[in-house]
Amino acid sequence: MKIAFVGLGQMGSAMAGNLIRAGHELTVYNRTPAKAQGLAAMGAVVASSPAEAARGCDAAITMLSDDDSVQEAVLGAGGIAEGLPASGLHIGSSTISTALARRLKGEHLKRGQRYVSAPVFGRPEAAEAKKLLVVPAGSPEDVEACRTIFESIGRQTFVAGTEPWQANALKLCGNFMIVSVIESFGEANATMRKAGVSPELFLEVMNALFASAVYANYGRIIATENFEPAGFALRLGLKDVRLVLQVAEECLSPMPIASLVRDHFLEAMALGYAESDWSRLSAIPARNSGL
Amino acid sequence: MKIAFVGLGQMGSAMAGNLIRAGHELTVYNRTPAKAQGLAAMGAVVASSPAEAARGCDAAITMLSDDDSVQEAVLGAGGIAEGLPASGLHIGSSTISTALARRLKGEHLKRGQRYVSAPVFGRPEAAEAKKLLVVPAGSPEDVEACRTIFESIGRQTFVAGTEPWQANALKLCGNFMIVSVIESFGEANATMRKAGVSPELFLEVMNALFASAVYANYGRIIATENFEPAGFALRLGLKDVRLVLQVAEECLSPMPIASLVRDHFLEAMALGYAESDWSRLSAIPARNSGL
Amino acid sequence: MKIAFVGLGQMGSAMAGNLIRAGHELTVYNRTPAKAQGLAAMGAVVASSPAEAARGCDAAITMLSDDDSVQEAVLGAGGIAEGLPASGLHIGSSTISTALARRLKGEHLKRGQRYVSAPVFGRPEAAEAKKLLVVPAGSPEDVEACRTIFESIGRQTFVAGTEPWQANALKLCGNFMIVSVIESFGEANATMRKAGVSPELFLEVMNALFASAVYANYGRIIATENFEPAGFALRLGLKDVRLVLQVAEECLSPMPIASLVRDHFLEAMALGYAESDWSRLSAIPARNSGL
Amino acid sequence: MKIAFVGLGQMGSAMAGNLIRAGHELTVYNRTPAKAQGLAAMGAVVASSPAEAARGCDAAITMLSDDDSVQEAVLGAGGIAEGLPASGLHIGSSTISTALARRLKGEHLKRGQRYVSAPVFGRPEAAEAKKLLVVPAGSPEDVEACRTIFESIGRQTFVAGTEPWQANALKLCGNFMIVSVIESFGEANATMRKAGVSPELFLEVMNALFASAVYANYGRIIATENFEPAGFALRLGLKDVRLVLQVAEECLSPMPIASLVRDHFLEAMALGYAESDWSRLSAIPARNSGL
Repeated sequence: MKIAFVGLGQMGSAMAGNLIRAGHELTVYNRTPAKAQGLAAMGAVVASSPAEAARGCDAAITMLSDDDSVQEAVLGAGGIAEGLPASGLHIGSSTISTALARRLKGEHLKRGQRYVSAPVFGRPEAAEAKKLLVVPAGSPEDVEACRTIFESIGRQTFVAGTEPWQANALKLCGNFMIVSVIESFGEANATMRKAGVSPELFLEVMNALFASAVYANYGRIIATENFEPAGFALRLGLKDVRLVLQVAEECLSPMPIASLVRDHFLEAMALGYAESDWSRLSAIPARNSGL
Repeated sequence: MKIAFVGLGQMGSAMAGNLIRAGHELTVYNRTPAKAQGLAAMGAVVASSPAEAARGCDAAITMLSDDDSVQEAVLGAGGIAEGLPASGLHIGSSTISTALARRLKGEHLKRGQRYVSAPVFGRPEAAEAKKLLVVPAGSPEDVEACRTIFESIGRQTFVAGTEPWQANALKLCGNFMIVSVIESFGEANATMRKAGVSPELFLEVMNALFASAVYANYGRIIATENFEPAGFALRLGLKDVRLVLQVAEECLSPMPIASLVRDHFLEAMALGYAESDWSRLSAIPARNSGL
Repeated sequence: MKIAFVGLGQMGSAMAGNLIRAGHELTVYNRTPAKAQGLAAMGAVVASSPAEAARGCDAAITMLSDDDSVQEAVLGAGGIAEGLPASGLHIGSSTISTALARRLKGEHLKRGQRYVSAPVFGRPEAAEAKKLLVVPAGSPEDVEACRTIFESIGRQTFVAGTEPWQANALKLCGNFMIVSVIESFGEANATMRKAGVSPELFLEVMNALFASAVYANYGRIIATENFEPAGFALRLGLKDVRLVLQVAEECLSPMPIASLVRDHFLEAMALGYAESDWSRLSAIPARNSGL
Repeated sequence: MKIAFVGLGQMGSAMAGNLIRAGHELTVYNRTPAKAQGLAAMGAVVASSPAEAARGCDAAITMLSDDDSVQEAVLGAGGIAEGLPASGLHIGSSTISTALARRLKGEHLKRGQRYVSAPVFGRPEAAEAKKLLVVPAGSPEDVEACRTIFESIGRQTFVAGTEPWQANALKLCGNFMIVSVIESFGEANATMRKAGVSPELFLEVMNALFASAVYANYGRIIATENFEPAGFALRLGLKDVRLVLQVAEECLSPMPIASLVRDHFLEAMALGYAESDWSRLSAIPARNSGL
């Protein structure tokens, strides 16, 4: 397939690389062009705008950091919507709001284009290793048409529903599950430390109990307070919690742990941790216990 | 070793059975004597009181449901403290308050006896399979003296500290980690259902993401709303959260997720779920979203 | 002064009436024109658009229900910004977001117009009785220029600051104080009822303790569960809490009671209480205690 | 009437003084005897134990700081229960747990004595000025028998119910209403400060809005951060919240604001504010916003 890829951060570059390796023909775009060099060396064509990247493609994938950057890259001047052929597919892999997913569906529809939301789970290492979990949603034919793409970037695909926004809702709820673990570790560790039990020992027990890589990875970062450099910036973690709270509001479904986590993220931001790893959220319960 | 075992519920019976299989000589006691029959058939002597069970033993293990039953069995008339020889060891494996652990240490000391807290992680199946995680704390010699016992009932031993109550604090924080997962699943599932995504699908994704038996087991119970019969009763879950909040208060370490979970447990109790599995906590966010 | 008044709900009509009585010359506009009849009978000129109302006026006042309606009435086609003369004053009395207040300041500035935020505290009866509390913010000269207007509609004026959005922040924090009382009454009443103490008796004691009309009025509505018709609709209460949480986020200042109240508002919305009085929030703690 | 008064802190001394002025015959007891001197000068007899104070009295009033001190003074060696004649009345005015109120009722009943809970609302100044609100509960005859006493110490009497513990539940819910105001002020002030609005101005507006002495008094302490010396110590505030949460648990009635306030009290205790005024709770939201 001929694919445009827009957004070449750590995640996007890894995903685009795997698409090339799987035999797809790629045109890539990134606001900072330097990040496209590695992919160019692998054979990707570097475009000067999202529209140019999308021109003549079967599909265009976006992997950007937030709603604003997706809106700009898709609906702004020189955006994907301008370049993508009629019946071309836009696959949105960024973690965006359900509201924007609904808007993108409508905007593409107006232009005869098609839209599938396909957010992914996994940190950059997983993206490199082609081990992402891909969660698409959209019309069954559209999702089907993307299968080979999903298989080129991930290890498993889970179809969330027939409306694109449902995939974004699922992705946000998944991130909520992870951030809940971070907050829980933070609270338990603060108590353990004040009880004279080392967080390292507590982590060992939790690893034996949960036997989960998520617990092992975040647990280690948290126990060693090793929050720099960020794998995923705290200010983006706050953004995700804000988005999950918007889903909760749309669905009229209270999520009190999300509310509580948001308040702790605000405290973390006020302390200047915006660019630390989002797991630095766990430092808030420690601070609030006087440590 | 010659060991008294007091408290033959599902957990206790399984642990006592493994001690017999490991070659220890057991005297057992249970308030409802019928539950001792299986162990008697394996060679255990059935005593008519905790004191009688403890008489002449190297160690006495308690595995009871709460503070009151432990106090009664240890410090009440005919209790372990009366029967256990001087320098005999009491190993408390029940999930009790840190305050009671401190009191037990003191009371045994007065009588020349020794006390080790050694709570365990694992549901009855794990106890049967000798796969418990054992978390002892006490003076290093006392903990060392119990090693063979721990190895007879569990797969791994983690020494929490030199004060018995530290093991109880760790156990309670571990249960807090589990109940946080239950609450998070409850909140995410409620939102997923209102977004038209099935909890079963969400669980599949979470299993791929966390790859943890704890998530798989509780996630399945929660997604299928299969809360009867209880593996661990909800009213005991509330008890554990109450105890973790007491630890938090002793340590002056706020644990807001624990506070929130306590409020949801109260709602669940008010709805009559006291004897359901504690994972029925997850039904509260669903109810609060109008489902 | 020659004044345009846009938004003739219960609050706006009462305020506009007092301005006429104070001798000001009024042009009024409301989307549903019927609501302007009473004011027309008092001498007001009825305009067919906000722009027409504002033409030739010294000041234009908006008293609308939310951000969208204010944006439409001010910046939409036929909006105030089109009609208001250069150096004319827009006085925004609606409870809107701080973000919109900043935007209005900028948009008016571009057109050589001036903007003052001047939200008010008080229910419709207070507006009728000229007893509103007026909280303006803006440049000192602009606020000064509005003094006679404020004195025509309220009993006291408090200048919140030199930036219009500060007045909106103060208004939202004031509404937060009121909604906290509603939530507290809800929680206390639920416990009182389950303890066999009547909410009416509890209210009598609270009236003796607080001696505040706010407690007396809301306390009576809550104790008698007399939530219809709404003095202020619950869905607008949710809007206000959403706006206060936005201020909290802008200021990086966690407000956990606001978070908790938001979750209870979502539960109330899910139960279909959108058009009840916002004090029906107090029914949520009752429901969550099984009543 | 012949009355014993046990507990001569600021509150108790003021109440006892008013009883003497009203013509009652008083025997008083305090652990630190020096505090009894003022009352002795007014004619009170100073006893050397609660039992001796209660001997031959119609009624014995306790006004102590917590459950432990009440248990000791009533049921300990030399306690009221030993000295009070059969059919004598114990009036418990301390803020104690509902559980202790039930126990006191039972213990007095065993001895043929009678028990009424009669907690009071009001700070020391109100006690001096005979302006307390008295909230008794007990059998109607017992409450009636205390009427003249209540009228000698307070300005209004509200009968909470026929079971003594109901009065304690009401008193605790009332304190919960006050502490909710303190927390709300703390959250709003933190946001106001970060928005560049002074807490003093915000307080002025709130005084105009609520027109309540409770808001005026606590609002001033909070806005000026004038937390020493304590009118009511923060550690006692934590005790009251702990007790209200126990009532909530007995009644299976979640009180999430109380949970949240408890967590903030723990943070305040961890910061060393135990002996500050309990309104220093309001400093926690400020700290959590980075101020």
